[in-house]
Amino acid sequence: MIIVLKPNQARRAEKAVTDEIERLGYKAHVMRGVARTVIGAIGDERTHANLEALSLWPQVESVMPVQKRFKLVSREAHPADSTVKVRHLTLGGRRFHVMAGPCSVESEKQLMETALAVKASGATLLRGGAFKPRTSPYEFQGLGKNGLKLLAKARKETGLPIVTELLSESHADMVAEYADVLQIGTRNAQNFQLLIAAAKTGKPVLLKRGLSMKIEEWLLAGEYILAHENPNLMLCERGIRTFETYTRNTLDLTAVPIVKQESHVPVVVDPSQGVGRADLVFAVCKGAVAMGADALLIEVHPNPSKAWSDGAQQLTLDGFSRLMTELKPFIHAAGRE
Amino acid sequence: MIIVLKPNQARRAEKAVTDEIERLGYKAHVMRGVARTVIGAIGDERTHANLEALSLWPQVESVMPVQKRFKLVSREAHPADSTVKVRHLTLGGRRFHVMAGPCSVESEKQLMETALAVKASGATLLRGGAFKPRTSPYEFQGLGKNGLKLLAKARKETGLPIVTELLSESHADMVAEYADVLQIGTRNAQNFQLLIAAAKTGKPVLLKRGLSMKIEEWLLAGEYILAHENPNLMLCERGIRTFETYTRNTLDLTAVPIVKQESHVPVVVDPSQGVGRADLVFAVCKGAVAMGADALLIEVHPNPSKAWSDGAQQLTLDGFSRLMTELKPFIHAAGRE
Amino acid sequence: MIIVLKPNQARRAEKAVTDEIERLGYKAHVMRGVARTVIGAIGDERTHANLEALSLWPQVESVMPVQKRFKLVSREAHPADSTVKVRHLTLGGRRFHVMAGPCSVESEKQLMETALAVKASGATLLRGGAFKPRTSPYEFQGLGKNGLKLLAKARKETGLPIVTELLSESHADMVAEYADVLQIGTRNAQNFQLLIAAAKTGKPVLLKRGLSMKIEEWLLAGEYILAHENPNLMLCERGIRTFETYTRNTLDLTAVPIVKQESHVPVVVDPSQGVGRADLVFAVCKGAVAMGADALLIEVHPNPSKAWSDGAQQLTLDGFSRLMTELKPFIHAAGRE
Amino acid sequence: MIIVLKPNQARRAEKAVTDEIERLGYKAHVMRGVARTVIGAIGDERTHANLEALSLWPQVESVMPVQKRFKLVSREAHPADSTVKVRHLTLGGRRFHVMAGPCSVESEKQLMETALAVKASGATLLRGGAFKPRTSPYEFQGLGKNGLKLLAKARKETGLPIVTELLSESHADMVAEYADVLQIGTRNAQNFQLLIAAAKTGKPVLLKRGLSMKIEEWLLAGEYILAHENPNLMLCERGIRTFETYTRNTLDLTAVPIVKQESHVPVVVDPSQGVGRADLVFAVCKGAVAMGADALLIEVHPNPSKAWSDGAQQLTLDGFSRLMTELKPFIHAAGRE
Repeated sequence: MIIVLKPNQARRAEKAVTDEIERLGYKAHVMRGVARTVIGAIGDERTHANLEALSLWPQVESVMPVQKRFKLVSREAHPADSTVKVRHLTLGGRRFHVMAGPCSVESEKQLMETALAVKASGATLLRGGAFKPRTSPYEFQGLGKNGLKLLAKARKETGLPIVTELLSESHADMVAEYADVLQIGTRNAQNFQLLIAAAKTGKPVLLKRGLSMKIEEWLLAGEYILAHENPNLMLCERGIRTFETYTRNTLDLTAVPIVKQESHVPVVVDPSQGVGRADLVFAVCKGAVAMGADALLIEVHPNPSKAWSDGAQQLTLDGFSRLMTELKPFIHAAGRE
Repeated sequence: MIIVLKPNQARRAEKAVTDEIERLGYKAHVMRGVARTVIGAIGDERTHANLEALSLWPQVESVMPVQKRFKLVSREAHPADSTVKVRHLTLGGRRFHVMAGPCSVESEKQLMETALAVKASGATLLRGGAFKPRTSPYEFQGLGKNGLKLLAKARKETGLPIVTELLSESHADMVAEYADVLQIGTRNAQNFQLLIAAAKTGKPVLLKRGLSMKIEEWLLAGEYILAHENPNLMLCERGIRTFETYTRNTLDLTAVPIVKQESHVPVVVDPSQGVGRADLVFAVCKGAVAMGADALLIEVHPNPSKAWSDGAQQLTLDGFSRLMTELKPFIHAAGRE
Repeated sequence: MIIVLKPNQARRAEKAVTDEIERLGYKAHVMRGVARTVIGAIGDERTHANLEALSLWPQVESVMPVQKRFKLVSREAHPADSTVKVRHLTLGGRRFHVMAGPCSVESEKQLMETALAVKASGATLLRGGAFKPRTSPYEFQGLGKNGLKLLAKARKETGLPIVTELLSESHADMVAEYADVLQIGTRNAQNFQLLIAAAKTGKPVLLKRGLSMKIEEWLLAGEYILAHENPNLMLCERGIRTFETYTRNTLDLTAVPIVKQESHVPVVVDPSQGVGRADLVFAVCKGAVAMGADALLIEVHPNPSKAWSDGAQQLTLDGFSRLMTELKPFIHAAGRE
Repeated sequence: MIIVLKPNQARRAEKAVTDEIERLGYKAHVMRGVARTVIGAIGDERTHANLEALSLWPQVESVMPVQKRFKLVSREAHPADSTVKVRHLTLGGRRFHVMAGPCSVESEKQLMETALAVKASGATLLRGGAFKPRTSPYEFQGLGKNGLKLLAKARKETGLPIVTELLSESHADMVAEYADVLQIGTRNAQNFQLLIAAAKTGKPVLLKRGLSMKIEEWLLAGEYILAHENPNLMLCERGIRTFETYTRNTLDLTAVPIVKQESHVPVVVDPSQGVGRADLVFAVCKGAVAMGADALLIEVHPNPSKAWSDGAQQLTLDGFSRLMTELKPFIHAAGRE
């Protein structure tokens, strides 16, 4: 920690700060500058918490951390890219992956039709929501356990591993029984009890970024998974909340190279949630590939205009097939398969 | 819903839209403007969900809702202010309330000292965290059940009802056994399963606004409490996330008169979390009172610079006493007691 | 400046950094921590610019400034509150001021009617736009010089000093000839050439905060006025841009006590622009007074629903009179006249 | 415009609204819904301004525009892509362009060295700042006219057309005499007087997006150029301001396909300003190309760590050369040359 004192402080005021720093187990190191005195507190900031309270002291102007707060998720802890095994697949390696499927599982027919079509177009995992977090209590909340059973059936039929959302601690075992990847949604990205419950299942976890989460906070949420001894973490950028209203959210594609730099975990991009409009999904997928994403998570529906949720952002089966064709040259340009 | 067509559409394209609107149970109403044709879909938007998917249709430019999505929480549903009974107290009435206490319960001594002091200064409820959601897994997570027991003891000693955070569905019964008000934190504000679990305890719920929640979404989260048959809802503004870095968050005090206008539920302001700096808490409390808040939620600690969490934003016991004195003329100016 | 090195750097890499720091005229001061080495660069950051480029060096993790970048505008430079003389009035002193009038000057009748009414209700300055910056080139752009003449006439009639916007460097002399206070609008808050032109007129300058300006940047924009030898600066909070769409902008009332703490200049709040809805102006004005503002800037129009610009946010004459009555107890509670 | 009435209004209240709508020259069209009555006001919203003031009326809940406010800049007005001629080059066509050069012109040596190197690597235009808008009055403000002369000399030497910023109305003629493209910076993006002055020179204008500008507002600022009879407009995305602090701004790459869809003008991306960190520029450039940008604007400096401004975001000459090589497969994948 770096503690900046206000200008013109008496030595006594300075000493009170260094005493407190040492009382808390750090070593204090004073630097007297032209305009201000700066004190370094040397020690591990992650295990010694309380220095920020020094900012309350009248002689202190600011307190600045110099260490990063995340450990296991950091590139320093694991210099090589980590990969996540999902059944027969390896995510985070040379091969680029596409997770596709409907926003919500609505019926066997809808799901099977979609699963077969996305597989034929090149998707390698099947996504589909059985439990849906909805802004309003009056909106469709998902088929629940029946949705999970349909997903399992679709996996059997197509061989595609399934990705589905976990939204309640109390469902963790049930969802883990069916799913190959547990998705944690944006509204639960800092629901730490749910993160712990997901981690404990041992299943791969796909952690979406919260709408107003800084990248550091997102990595720290991921740290909850690794710290609870589940190494199978993937992070998914899906848009942040800004003032722009043209798109539902603002997809922060720069987060892809940043997370790749700060961390070793695979990065997935969800353009459907990110922009909320199917007509923009094509361009966004190309951008995500070019910027180094390891996989895409795309909403596809046989008839989006009749979907039970988020129709406006789902691609048609044909649209998805066209997208996969258009993506190919970009996947090659990015040096992926 | 209002559906705006793109310019120069053939009648056939227009008819396809009106047919779909009627198929979904609405009545279609066409208005031909100078530059664009607009179609009204008449029917209850809260029960007929799917019109937004029309925005995918090539002939459609935009789809705009005209109804509000919340019902029970709206002023229309309950024109008078609603009040919430917490033991012997009534929140939301003429009397202004102050909930004060430490960010985290740390020890019996710390809690009792604070409880007695805030009561002496005029606080009417005691707040204190027993379970703490922390951005990093390596930070202090609260005393848990022991913290709850200490709070109950402090209540017995002082008569102050207690407000404490619920952060796991699996704790709902245990926390409800001790607490008088269940606080739902900002990171869980759209953890709908937790909202349902809180509602089902029947205890008053203090719902904080999420960091990136629009007011409409906040009211809809509150709707989850009322729709699960718990009428004892209070909403708490505690700052939203913006680009400004001087304060931890940006307290949106205008939300107070807005919620008062749109809804009937009591509104609380949390300046401590809102600004994250004790030196600004005084001015913010005065502003909150002047703008019509029904209560304040304030962090107070016998020795903030040694607090185990969020030291920088907690008031001292003396500071709190001074604040209560300074607040009085503003409480009177606002016509409250 | 504080330069944080990446972990495990060779002494040679460290030395390259200290050499560069000294080459640029700072004194380097090395602190070796547990996880990282931190180097302090001692010297005046405001005159030695380029250390931030060190963040490009491979061995450097981050570069953090420790000094504030503003000087003349800071409370350190001028510990007492500064006041601004506008004709016979003193802003920033014990007396609370209200600047009121129409968004745009539309006609002699409209302006005179408003000026007389706001004076009768207690306003002490008259505001009115003669040059209007408009988002679209097809919207009403103001009466121009004729508007200025009408304002001068209204001042003669009522004795109220006038506040009006300057939006072009080329108008600076003309507007200064008529106006008592030059307002710099939010879209021009970092139009530095305009700030310099305004400063050079010697007239008091009311600098609105830009929609996405951090408080530090706003103070630095104010620094342009003081650095060009015009001490008559006032800062006006008028809302920042956030994700919330209920109000046009999000009024950051906490900026009032922050600016009061960091700076010595008078602070004005513009609730009309800040919230964009007349029905919320009452509550916001009370909050601004309670939080320590020195003055309010309020839009008032004889018939807002027929105004040529921004009708939705202007108060009626009656509404303004009622507001002034309701504000009184809050002005007294704040210790102002 | 669509005017939504509050529930349960008397016919008389409804009639007052329709009368006002017709008084203002629109045709009123009433739709009675289940919960609310909605009134369409039929007429050209761009020429009839004032309906938004209806939102002040007690019986009115909201007023929603249905038309877009921009005309000349819209895809409707010009269905094909427009191109901009800059000397011998055509921007907006099949050929992809790269504008490269130093943030600030510092000396003849620095500029010539950069110009020759970026040309050799494949840049087609030379950028360089002669007038610099700086957040603080104490920072380097550019070489001014001497900078322009050096740019002209570099153009003579290399044949590269030059792009440089215009930041004062009073410089318009002087800058236009030297520059091939006038850049309008982010802080001046809604300095409408400057936009008009730039338009009047007849030179191509590169309009950067303001830090908190919605896409609609950006297009409307562009409309100022076209409405002042200068068809040579290019729009440049360079990052918006959000809560994320890892990068200086958040580059909104989705704006590229959106502007391409809503408008016909060429779109440029500035990754240097957008992310503020040279190490992320590579990934961002690839993303911009993949998402359909027509050109890039990149800061390059022979020795970024010694640059007089914004060193942290400038590429080295070698770095730029490597970038151009890495970009090629993405340019081909995007179907450009």
